[in-house]
Amino acid sequence: MSTTDTQPRRSIGAARNPDSHAAILAAAEEIFCESGYAGFSIEAVARRARAGKPTIYRWWPSKAHLLLDVYTRLKSSRMPDPDTGTLEGDIRSFLTELVRFWSGNTGGVYKSLIAEAQADHKAAEALQAYSIERTQHTAGMFERAKARGEMRADADSLAASDLMSAYAWKLLLTDRLADQADIIDKVTSILVRGLVK
Amino acid sequence: MSTTDTQPRRSIGAARNPDSHAAILAAAEEIFCESGYAGFSIEAVARRARAGKPTIYRWWPSKAHLLLDVYTRLKSSRMPDPDTGTLEGDIRSFLTELVRFWSGNTGGVYKSLIAEAQADHKAAEALQAYSIERTQHTAGMFERAKARGEMRADADSLAASDLMSAYAWKLLLTDRLADQADIIDKVTSILVRGLVK
Repeated sequence: MSTTDTQPRRSIGAARNPDSHAAILAAAEEIFCESGYAGFSIEAVARRARAGKPTIYRWWPSKAHLLLDVYTRLKSSRMPDPDTGTLEGDIRSFLTELVRFWSGNTGGVYKSLIAEAQADHKAAEALQAYSIERTQHTAGMFERAKARGEMRADADSLAASDLMSAYAWKLLLTDRLADQADIIDKVTSILVRGLVK
Repeated sequence: MSTTDTQPRRSIGAARNPDSHAAILAAAEEIFCESGYAGFSIEAVARRARAGKPTIYRWWPSKAHLLLDVYTRLKSSRMPDPDTGTLEGDIRSFLTELVRFWSGNTGGVYKSLIAEAQADHKAAEALQAYSIERTQHTAGMFERAKARGEMRADADSLAASDLMSAYAWKLLLTDRLADQADIIDKVTSILVRGLVK
């Protein structure tokens, strides 16, 4: 794909040049890690990646979409899905690791994004889509517990995933990420009892 | 208390004039209901109540504190504590009524306040204090279930209260307040199973 926008656009599929897409993501990740939410903008990413703003908008409809893409990639690399072999271990690990992941600058970025989504329509759309996708992804943890015969077949994996992550959100949004081992244990215990056979 | 601030201040206790305190709260509630978060400011409340800004700040350290005071009063009057006689009924009623309460303009105000708390230190303090107080208050619902012999003595009422309200927060913050009866049923079922004997 040309980096200028004077040529006629091809379809998004055809136009997706891996190098340029990767360059934009790499620039976005650098800016995310260096400057957090306040310094993150489509303009800054375009400058750093030497890409045109329209090129970025062709792939990511808003700053929030691009930021959540970077956030998801960081999360996948730093916080692997728990697979301890037990539901209790997986839930405790999920909550503990998420709180740890957020204790870096990612927590600040994520809470700022949730905040922006309360006022900005595109950010709200991006957050809702991200949240639904992640809830489905994390439901796999509960489906594995069902497959092991550990979790009740009639307990809803999506609802469990949504409830568990909601708890982490509230810790983040009320500045209670520190020293949460005790309360995470108590919440884990309620969830496990609520889900096991 | 004098409405001017030229007289020497008495202690806050002595200075708390019920009329003026009530007038400020009444004005704040009117502005809250008429104009929502965007129109709510200490200046606007002072004008409406014909009170001095320093008088307001003597009782409420920030706009967020005053707004949460109004919010709490509205919530207490519109959403009584559930007391259905069963834990399942109480949890379902709490979540259903909270979602309904937020479907008015209060939901918009509350999500804006949560958003502001992610960037503003005083709003964060006010929200954290409010959240802790409400979590303790709602824990009473679970303590009543323990007193009835319905809930396990070793399940933590504060953690249960925190987890339940966290779920409601996530629905609010991801624009999923509508048509939640089915998911509320599923979450209620997990929580009940997690807490009962």
